[in-house]
Amino acid sequence: MSTAKVVAAFRERFPDRVSTAAAVREHHCQTVTWLPRQPPEAVVTAEDTGEVSWIVARCAEHGVPVIPFGAGSSLEGQLNAPRGGICLDLSKMDKVLRVSADDLTATVQPGVTREELNRRLRDSGLFFPVDPGANASLGGMASTRASGTNAVRYGTMRENVRELEVVLPDGRITRAGSLARKSSAGYDLAHLFVGAEGTLGVITELTVRLYQVPERIGSGVCSFPSVHAACRAVTDALAAGLGLARIELLDEASVRACNEYSGLGLDEKVHLFFELHATDAVLPSEARLLGEILAEHGGGRFEWSTDQAARTKLWRARHDAWWAIHARYPGRKGIPTDVCVPISRLAECVELTQQDILATGADAPIIGHVGDGNFHLLVMIDESDAAVVTRARELVHRLTERAIAMGGTCTGEHGVGQGKAGAMVLEHGAAVDVMREIKRALDPRDIMNPGKILPV
Amino acid sequence: MSTAKVVAAFRERFPDRVSTAAAVREHHCQTVTWLPRQPPEAVVTAEDTGEVSWIVARCAEHGVPVIPFGAGSSLEGQLNAPRGGICLDLSKMDKVLRVSADDLTATVQPGVTREELNRRLRDSGLFFPVDPGANASLGGMASTRASGTNAVRYGTMRENVRELEVVLPDGRITRAGSLARKSSAGYDLAHLFVGAEGTLGVITELTVRLYQVPERIGSGVCSFPSVHAACRAVTDALAAGLGLARIELLDEASVRACNEYSGLGLDEKVHLFFELHATDAVLPSEARLLGEILAEHGGGRFEWSTDQAARTKLWRARHDAWWAIHARYPGRKGIPTDVCVPISRLAECVELTQQDILATGADAPIIGHVGDGNFHLLVMIDESDAAVVTRARELVHRLTERAIAMGGTCTGEHGVGQGKAGAMVLEHGAAVDVMREIKRALDPRDIMNPGKILPV
Repeated sequence: MSTAKVVAAFRERFPDRVSTAAAVREHHCQTVTWLPRQPPEAVVTAEDTGEVSWIVARCAEHGVPVIPFGAGSSLEGQLNAPRGGICLDLSKMDKVLRVSADDLTATVQPGVTREELNRRLRDSGLFFPVDPGANASLGGMASTRASGTNAVRYGTMRENVRELEVVLPDGRITRAGSLARKSSAGYDLAHLFVGAEGTLGVITELTVRLYQVPERIGSGVCSFPSVHAACRAVTDALAAGLGLARIELLDEASVRACNEYSGLGLDEKVHLFFELHATDAVLPSEARLLGEILAEHGGGRFEWSTDQAARTKLWRARHDAWWAIHARYPGRKGIPTDVCVPISRLAECVELTQQDILATGADAPIIGHVGDGNFHLLVMIDESDAAVVTRARELVHRLTERAIAMGGTCTGEHGVGQGKAGAMVLEHGAAVDVMREIKRALDPRDIMNPGKILPV
Repeated sequence: MSTAKVVAAFRERFPDRVSTAAAVREHHCQTVTWLPRQPPEAVVTAEDTGEVSWIVARCAEHGVPVIPFGAGSSLEGQLNAPRGGICLDLSKMDKVLRVSADDLTATVQPGVTREELNRRLRDSGLFFPVDPGANASLGGMASTRASGTNAVRYGTMRENVRELEVVLPDGRITRAGSLARKSSAGYDLAHLFVGAEGTLGVITELTVRLYQVPERIGSGVCSFPSVHAACRAVTDALAAGLGLARIELLDEASVRACNEYSGLGLDEKVHLFFELHATDAVLPSEARLLGEILAEHGGGRFEWSTDQAARTKLWRARHDAWWAIHARYPGRKGIPTDVCVPISRLAECVELTQQDILATGADAPIIGHVGDGNFHLLVMIDESDAAVVTRARELVHRLTERAIAMGGTCTGEHGVGQGKAGAMVLEHGAAVDVMREIKRALDPRDIMNPGKILPV
C-alpha cells in the first residue's frame, strides 16, 4: 500500500513528527459541519519549506493524497480525506519572518494565526485586518480566500496577499506575486493559489498587507423595520464613501439570541452593527452623516460610541453570536453556510431566505457582512432526526441556487471544499472545465487535496 | 496556407470587415516602441461575442494565430504578429451594456474606452478611475493589467475587474469572476485572464467597479531637495492614511520639459504632484496634515488648490509630459519603460537609475507613480544611431535587473509583451514553468497571441 510506504519514509526522517493514532487523525479532519468525518491515514508535521517539498515529492512518487492543515477551522470539509492519504500539518511553521513598516507588509509562515500576527504587531501601530472569526492560520485563510467583518473596508485575502511561496504538487518550490504593490509581469499565479484550498500546491510562506491602526474607531447600532430598509441604508452609506470598516446585519432571531447570551438589550428587530475607522478630525462628521442616512431609511435611534468598553461589548457580542445561537438551541448542532450576492439583490435574497426558513420550519438565524452582500445562516439541527437533516440540506441547496440565480456566488468566504462542490457547475458553467484543465496541468495525478472544489 | 483559408472563410461571412491591405495591417501592430513592426496577415473586425467565438474556432482549427486588438495603445509589442496570423479588432464592440449605481459597477464590451465610459457616467455621480494616460480600451486595459496615476487610491485593473466573459483558445465562451463583491467559489480565473495579454483567450465583456465622484478634489505641488526626501515624504503620507488619489514624482529633467511645454514655472528640482479626494468637511485637515509631512522632509512651499482651473492646469501638464519631453528633444523617438519596486526601495532605485542615466550619457527623464513604487523612463533616442540604441537597450536592461534585485517587477503597468519577455525568468524563476503549463493546458496549439509574455 503506497501510503504505508511514504509513512515509513516519514518515520525514518521525522521519527517524532508522524502519527497514525486515531485521535490525531480524527483531530485533523473535518469537525465543524454535517459532512461525515474522513480522517487521513497519517499526519506528518513539517517545520520548513524544504521538508514540505520533500514530503510532497514522496507523496507524488507514490500517488498518495496530501491534505494541507493549518488551524483546522475550515467549514466545508476542506480537511477531509475522501481518498485517504496524509495530512500535512503546517501549524509548527509559525514564524513571523519580517515586518516592513515602510511597505506595510508582513512575511509569515503559513501556520501563523491572525491573532498571533496581530499580537506581534501590537506596538507597531499596524494591524492585519482580515478576521474570519476563528483564529485561523494565515496559510489556511489564503487557501480558502477568507474574509470576515472587516472586508468591506480592507478587502479579503484576495486583496491582502501580495506574494506567496508555494510547493507544487510535484515538490518543486515556486514563488507567485510580487513584493511590489503592483505588477503587470505575466500570469497572476498568486491569485490562482489564493482560494485553491490546497488543490494546486501548499502555501509555505506569504507576504500580507498591513494597515495603520486607525486614529479613532467608533461603533454604532441601529434597528430597522425590515431587512429591505436596512439594506437600502447600507447601499447609501457605502455610496457616501464613509470609512465603514464593518457593517453587520443581524436578523430578529440573531438579535434574540445575542440579547439572551450577551445581555445586549436590543429590540427584537433587524439590526445593523457599524464600525467606522477614521481620524479624530473626521470621525464626528462621518458618524453624523451615517446617522442621517440611517434615519432616512427608517432606522431607529442610532446608538453610537467611541468608548472602548462599549465597542468591545458590542463586537464581543457579535463574535459570540455563534455561541449565543447554540445556547438558544441546546442539544442542536449548528450548520454554518454562506452565500454572497450583488448588493443590489441583497435585501431580496435575505427576505426570500427568511420566508423559506419559515416555510421549512427551520431554526436558522441570519447574520450578514452586508457591506459585501455576504450573509450566513446558522441552521440549528437535531442531527438524530433524519427528516430535519434532509429539510436543512434542501434549505441550504435552495439558498445556494437563489444566490447564484441573482448573479451571486455559492460561497462568499467559507470556500467550496466538499460541501459546495455540487454547486460549482451551476455557478460557473463551462469555467469549471477550465478549472479542471488547470488542475490537471499542475497536478496530473490529483494528489493535492483531492475531492475538493471540483465536483467528482 | 492556413491563414489564407481562414481569411477566405472570414470574407465569406464578413465581406466588409476583413482587410489584408498593408496600411490596415501596419495600423494594427506595434507602433510606439523600438520593437520592429510585425504586422498581422489580415485584420478582421468582430461585432459580438458569437462572432469572436466563431473566428477563434476557425483559427483554432487551422492553427492560425489570433491577436486581439482594442485601441492599439499598448507599449511592449503586445500587438505584433511574430508568427503571422490574424488581428481580431474588437474596437467596434463598444457598447456600455449596464450601469448599476447600487452595485457600483459597469458592464461593458471590450472596445469601450475609458474616456467613453466616463463620458457615459458623467451625470451619474460615478466614475471609473483607472487612467493609464492613453485613451485605451477597457478590454485592452484588463489584458495588460493597466493602472496609472489613480492607482494609489483606486487600485489597478487587477482590483477593478469583477467579472469577465472570455472566448477561450478553442472558441468556447466562458465567464470568470463574480458580480458579487467577493467569492470563495473555486479558482480565481478572472485574475488569470486579467494581465494575460490575450494569450489565454479574448475578453469579450467585462464588469468593472465604479466609484462616487469625490465631493471635493484638491491638488498640490511641492519641490524637494532630493529623490530620497520626496520618497520618504510619500512613505509617511501613505502611512498617515490620507485620501491620496495621485502622487506623481517628476525628476529635474521632467520638470524642465514641463516648464517649457506647459509654462508651469516650477523650480528645476524634483517635485511631487498630489491629488487628494475627500469630503468638503475633511479635505482642509487632510491638506494641512499633508503639508506638515512634506515640510518635515524638506519640501519647499506646498502650493495647494481646490480651484478647478489650477488643478486642470497641473494635471494637464502631467498628462502632456510625454509631449513635453518629445518637444525638448526634437527628432528623437521616446522609448517608454517602467518598473515597480517595494516602496521601501523606491528612493534607492530611482537614485541609482539617475546615476546610471548620467553615466550612460542618455536623455531619459523620470516620472513616477510613486505611491505605488512604480516609475517610468522615457528614453529619448536618435534611432539612426546604432550605438545610442544599444546603450539605451542596455540602460533599460540594467533598470529591469535593478528593480527585480530589489524584490520588484520588470513592469508595473505596461505589461510584458515582447519587450520584457526576456526578464520573466529572472523575475519569476520556476514560476515561469507554471505559467507555461497553464498556457499549454488552455491553448495547446499556442494560437492566442503567441510569442508574448513567455520567453521563446
